[in-house]
Formats: sequence, C-alpha cells, structure tokens
Amino acid sequence: MKLVVLIKFGGSLITDKTRSFTSKPGTIRRLCLELARARKKTGKLIIIGNGGGSFPHQPAVEYRTAEGMINRDSFRGIAVVQDAAARLNRIIVAQLLRAGENAITLNPSSFMITENGEIKKAFLVPILKLLESKMLPVVYGDVGLDEEKGCCILSTEKILNYLALKLKQRGYLVEKIILAGITDGVYDSRGKTISKLTPEKFSKFKKEIGVSDGIDVTGGMIHKVEQAMKLAKKGIETLIIDGKTTGNLKKAILDQEVKGTLIKK
Amino acid sequence: MKLVVLIKFGGSLITDKTRSFTSKPGTIRRLCLELARARKKTGKLIIIGNGGGSFPHQPAVEYRTAEGMINRDSFRGIAVVQDAAARLNRIIVAQLLRAGENAITLNPSSFMITENGEIKKAFLVPILKLLESKMLPVVYGDVGLDEEKGCCILSTEKILNYLALKLKQRGYLVEKIILAGITDGVYDSRGKTISKLTPEKFSKFKKEIGVSDGIDVTGGMIHKVEQAMKLAKKGIETLIIDGKTTGNLKKAILDQEVKGTLIKK
Repeated sequence: MKLVVLIKFGGSLITDKTRSFTSKPGTIRRLCLELARARKKTGKLIIIGNGGGSFPHQPAVEYRTAEGMINRDSFRGIAVVQDAAARLNRIIVAQLLRAGENAITLNPSSFMITENGEIKKAFLVPILKLLESKMLPVVYGDVGLDEEKGCCILSTEKILNYLALKLKQRGYLVEKIILAGITDGVYDSRGKTISKLTPEKFSKFKKEIGVSDGIDVTGGMIHKVEQAMKLAKKGIETLIIDGKTTGNLKKAILDQEVKGTLIKK
Repeated sequence: MKLVVLIKFGGSLITDKTRSFTSKPGTIRRLCLELARARKKTGKLIIIGNGGGSFPHQPAVEYRTAEGMINRDSFRGIAVVQDAAARLNRIIVAQLLRAGENAITLNPSSFMITENGEIKKAFLVPILKLLESKMLPVVYGDVGLDEEKGCCILSTEKILNYLALKLKQRGYLVEKIILAGITDGVYDSRGKTISKLTPEKFSKFKKEIGVSDGIDVTGGMIHKVEQAMKLAKKGIETLIIDGKTTGNLKKAILDQEVKGTLIKK
C-alpha cells in the first residue's frame, strides 16, 4: 500500500504564541496519541511536519531570516533559528516515541536547498527508505539554505507540499495533506466554516478580502490556502482542521467526517 | 582561504560512559570555548563532529542497530538511537552557540545514505554553502539508513573522513582531522605516546597487538587508527589528542605543538 497522508501540527497549536520557547505538552501528547491510535487502524503511510510557533519566531523576526543574508548578523540568525526549530522538533519526536511511533527526524536544512525561498533540490533517499519501512518521518519548519539570497524560512507547508508532489511523481497515492491548526478551517464573512474551497471559489473569495474585513484569514491562513490551492490544481487535496478539538486529527486520518475546510479542484 | 580542519569531540570525552544520557557540561563548555578562541586567531574553516558516547550507546546495543534490520524491533531501534544521538548534539550546539559560534547541525541520517555500513551517497550542497559562509557545520555519530542491511551505525570518524575526502576532491586543502579523545594519542607497549604513526609502522604495530596485551588500544582506538590509516594513504593527516587537557584542542587547531599521535603517510 502506497497511500500517504501528510500532517502538519501547526505552530500555534503546539506552542504558546505569547511566550518564547514554550510548548504545549498536553496538546502535543494528545495529538501524538491520536495519530498513533489512527495508525493502528489504517495501513496509510504518514509523514509529520511540525510548525515552529514561538520557538524560532522571535529570532527569525530579530534577524530577519526570511529576507536572506542581509548583514553580518544574518549568519548568527541562521544558527539561532535552526537551533530553536530543532529544539521544538525534539519535543515532538519525544512524544511520538512515547506514543509508540517509530519517529525519525529529517532535518530540512540538512537535505533541502532553496532558491529565492522555494525548494529547489532535496535528497529524498532517506524519506523514501523510511516510508518503505513504514516508519514515521518527521520534518519541521526550519531555516533554509538558499542558493540566491543565502537563507530563508522554510515553512512546514512548503516542505510538505514539495514532498507530496515528489511522492506523487514516484507513484505514491497522496490522499491528502492535513493542516491541524487552531481554527475550524477557513471562515466565511459570517465566521462560518467553508466546508469546501475550490480554486474558482477562492479567486472570488480572495477579492472579497479586499472589500471586507469580516473574513478571518489571520495567522497566515492566506499563505496556507494559497499553498493548498497550488497543490489542488495538481490533484492533491488539503484539509484544514482544528487540532484543539479532541478526536479531530484521528478522524481526519481515518477519513471520517470532521469539521474543517477541504481544498480541492 | 579554503584550509579546512575537521574535529571530533569524542563520545567518551563529552559524556559519562558509566551513566546513560549524561553529558559532561564542563568539558563541553571548555572545548567549545577553546574552539571559539582558536577560530578568532585563524581563518581556517572548521567542521565539528561529536561522538554519541553514553547517549545512543545503550539503545544501539539493545537493538543491535549496527547489525542492520534484523527483526521487527529494529525499526524501533533506529528511531530511539536517532533520537538519543540528536539529543546530545543539541547540547553540543547549545554550548557552541553560547561560545559565539554560528553552529549549524547537519543531521547525518537526513543527508547521507550507506551501503553495508559505508557511506555511499551524501547531499553536500548545505555543508558547502555553510563553509562558503564561514559558518560552523556540526555533524555527529548517528544511525545510518542503509541500502543493503536497512540500518547501521554511522560513526563520527566515518562521517568526518568521508567529508574530508569529498572536500579534498573539490579543491579544499584539508589540513587535518583532529580526534579529541581521552588518551594522549596511541600508546606503545610501554604506555608511551607514539608521536608519529605511518602505515608501515602501523602494520608492524598491529602484529604486536596479537602478541602483546600491553598496548592500550581500548575504546575503539583500533577503529580510529584504521580509519585514519585509510585517510593517510590518500594524503590526509589525523591527529589524536587528549581533549581532557586544557589547551590541547586550541593548540591543535592553531597547529602548535601538542602531545598526541599524528597519523600520516
């Protein structure tokens, strides 16, 4: 079976946005257990990606890492941001191991290279070997080494989307990407979850953003949706769910009904 | 300047061999400061590799990771050994950052693949980019994903030696590999440091091992020397020093006289 689901644990879901370097151990533990329980009921292959949240946030802003190597301090920024992201990833992996999962970190800055913020090349042999063995590869939002501007921020969405496309090209059936965040998907102007969002609906919806401030697209939701739209056009679905609600992640993995926004062609 | 020195912080030097998951913070801190001070005096490019010592040792033995994927538990072993090694590496990187170094982890299991325990392929773009920026790449003894036997143990020596050869092929001048351990180099039958060891001397010396138990080759010293001999034949020197003695590492980096064994052609 080569059916794959890629899952993001959102940074806002697993860390306390108001305090640097503070994870949410209870939420992380529950998400890992939901994942482990779902895995026992299904033979689907899974890849996890965790966002960085309040771990790399402060140094990434301080050193303006997303802008590239802009001054001498940028080198320090790369080092400090990478360390911060790696520290949170170890907390996630520890809980995955505790939940019985054979989780293996694949450190994006070690096996990917970007060009102007987009992933240009990646060494995929390890992740393919891990999937073959039904192990659980874990990637995470990281600093990226960039051919053009020196460095960048590699978002978890970009990493998972890149991997999803590469796996599809290699004959894997990518069922979907699940983004577990802190909202019940994408909200309409009345604050109600849009259950299905197509590229056509989104182009209309995006125009509304300019004229209406009632639509909740805060917290990088636009980035998430835009990335998902690109993927939808290539035949890969994204499901945005609220990871705070117990059971949502497990249901989403098992393809049971769950409140959220499905982004598809 | 493309002069490179590769340095190993030995596992026995930085961890307490008698207690699992116990690092030696004072020693680690001092080594990182010696490195940072030497770097200020020299333009040499440096790559650090840290051994795993008592962190991955116990799970690696329990799951027999070096033997490959031998049973169902082997998958668990890969995950647990990788986590243990990564945990120690974070401690090392934290101290390197504290010493002012722009240290960046390159996680070997993410960018290298082995075949029967030997490194077969590696994604070298990130390490080359980091050296270009005069940053400090940090690798470490890790689990290896193996094309032939599923998994293996990737020793820090193997990783550093591989990188040294690849850098040499790309026009870097590899000055030497420094192995900072817990002995003053390799001892002769009277317990005296052999200051220089050539392949000819070693083949004679190796024979003595069979007939004499007076030579101190414990703690994987034979493995280290054999790896170094292979490298010496290809024109790269290895210097084995005692990292416990304050100042030794700094002197070795600055190419000042230091007690130890130099392995060269």
